[in-house]
Amino acid sequence: MERLIRHFQEELEALQQRLLAMGGLAEERTRLAVRGVAERNPDDILAVLNGDEPINDLHIEVDDRCVKLLALHQPMAADLRAIVAAVKINTDLERVGDLAVNVAEAAKRYLQHAPVKPLIDIPRMGDIAQEMLRDALDAFVRRDVALAEAVLIKDDELDALKTQIFRELLTYMLQDPTTIEPALDLILISRHLERIGDHATNIAEDVIFMVSARDVRHQPIDPASSGARG
Amino acid sequence: MERLIRHFQEELEALQQRLLAMGGLAEERTRLAVRGVAERNPDDILAVLNGDEPINDLHIEVDDRCVKLLALHQPMAADLRAIVAAVKINTDLERVGDLAVNVAEAAKRYLQHAPVKPLIDIPRMGDIAQEMLRDALDAFVRRDVALAEAVLIKDDELDALKTQIFRELLTYMLQDPTTIEPALDLILISRHLERIGDHATNIAEDVIFMVSARDVRHQPIDPASSGARG
Repeated sequence: MERLIRHFQEELEALQQRLLAMGGLAEERTRLAVRGVAERNPDDILAVLNGDEPINDLHIEVDDRCVKLLALHQPMAADLRAIVAAVKINTDLERVGDLAVNVAEAAKRYLQHAPVKPLIDIPRMGDIAQEMLRDALDAFVRRDVALAEAVLIKDDELDALKTQIFRELLTYMLQDPTTIEPALDLILISRHLERIGDHATNIAEDVIFMVSARDVRHQPIDPASSGARG
Repeated sequence: MERLIRHFQEELEALQQRLLAMGGLAEERTRLAVRGVAERNPDDILAVLNGDEPINDLHIEVDDRCVKLLALHQPMAADLRAIVAAVKINTDLERVGDLAVNVAEAAKRYLQHAPVKPLIDIPRMGDIAQEMLRDALDAFVRRDVALAEAVLIKDDELDALKTQIFRELLTYMLQDPTTIEPALDLILISRHLERIGDHATNIAEDVIFMVSARDVRHQPIDPASSGARG
């Protein structure tokens, strides 16, 4: 029994490592996509457009690991909630990978026009979104509710920047119709970055859900209920 | 044992009914938000802006039911995959509720301006998104992979309409700057509706994941591993 519990903890640890690896990839792809548009670097953009596979492969692997852990170990209480949270976090991280591609797609279109303005707020949004992702996953691994709550607060900052970018770009569009098309892509990029922050927020909320146990989830199993397994 | 298995199946059935109820609410709120903008009806919009609670309450209830089912019954194979799918579908449906609010927020702003044009494609997008949601949840309840695959195909239709709406509105914005602000809200609405379709697509993919079993998930439990439960 000792051995089996240790084996489960090793499997849970491996699962968390995969999620951290996915988070690292998601952060890096967000960073590249934003740098691509801010520094008008087509190579960065192409790298994001063509590099979605590793995250998608991890997405499938993590789902399999979660189901396998649930099937073979029937974890209870905190362990069970950790795996349910992992299922959700896995989905959020895969979406962040997609959103990095969306940013790169808009960036590719944006580079076909003259720059509307020097970009300051969009890189700032990218930095905040990456920071939120990193903190949310650290909060998951450390079971750190305070850090998770800090992520929720940071999301307001991201929303405020999105609104500010929108208002500013609107004035450019109204003054000069030739900026309408590229400004629209910048508006879309700011919204994709906001959504990356939303996924980090979801992860932070999952961490809070995971750590805040409910009584019913601690309920010992009715021994007879093992019959329901087959 | 017979009794316990039946109890589990009843619980699983109740869980599916809750997801169907959430889906019904998500569809209805999408319908109201789109009607609000298409028919310029502030009451519809207000109803969506103020009516998010029932979905959010169901979101929490479904999460609790999933964790409880996993904890008390340790389901295997198909039942286990169904509950893991339910955890994901629950998240998607809650997001659809949020997106209906996003549509209503943009619609509220849109109504402050003169109409850019009679809206035909946006209601069409709303209809397709609602249909996709309905079909995806039917596919879940009936374990119907063919219906789930049909949902994936319908998503292309939604993306095509989104692109068409974007191009058309761009011409309005370029011709008449007074249309820029309201046209932007229509573009955002079309993107929110596209995202509702994306969530229906996620649900359809979860159904395919759920029905397509892997050998490892059918593996009988090592009896000793029950020690890992405590």
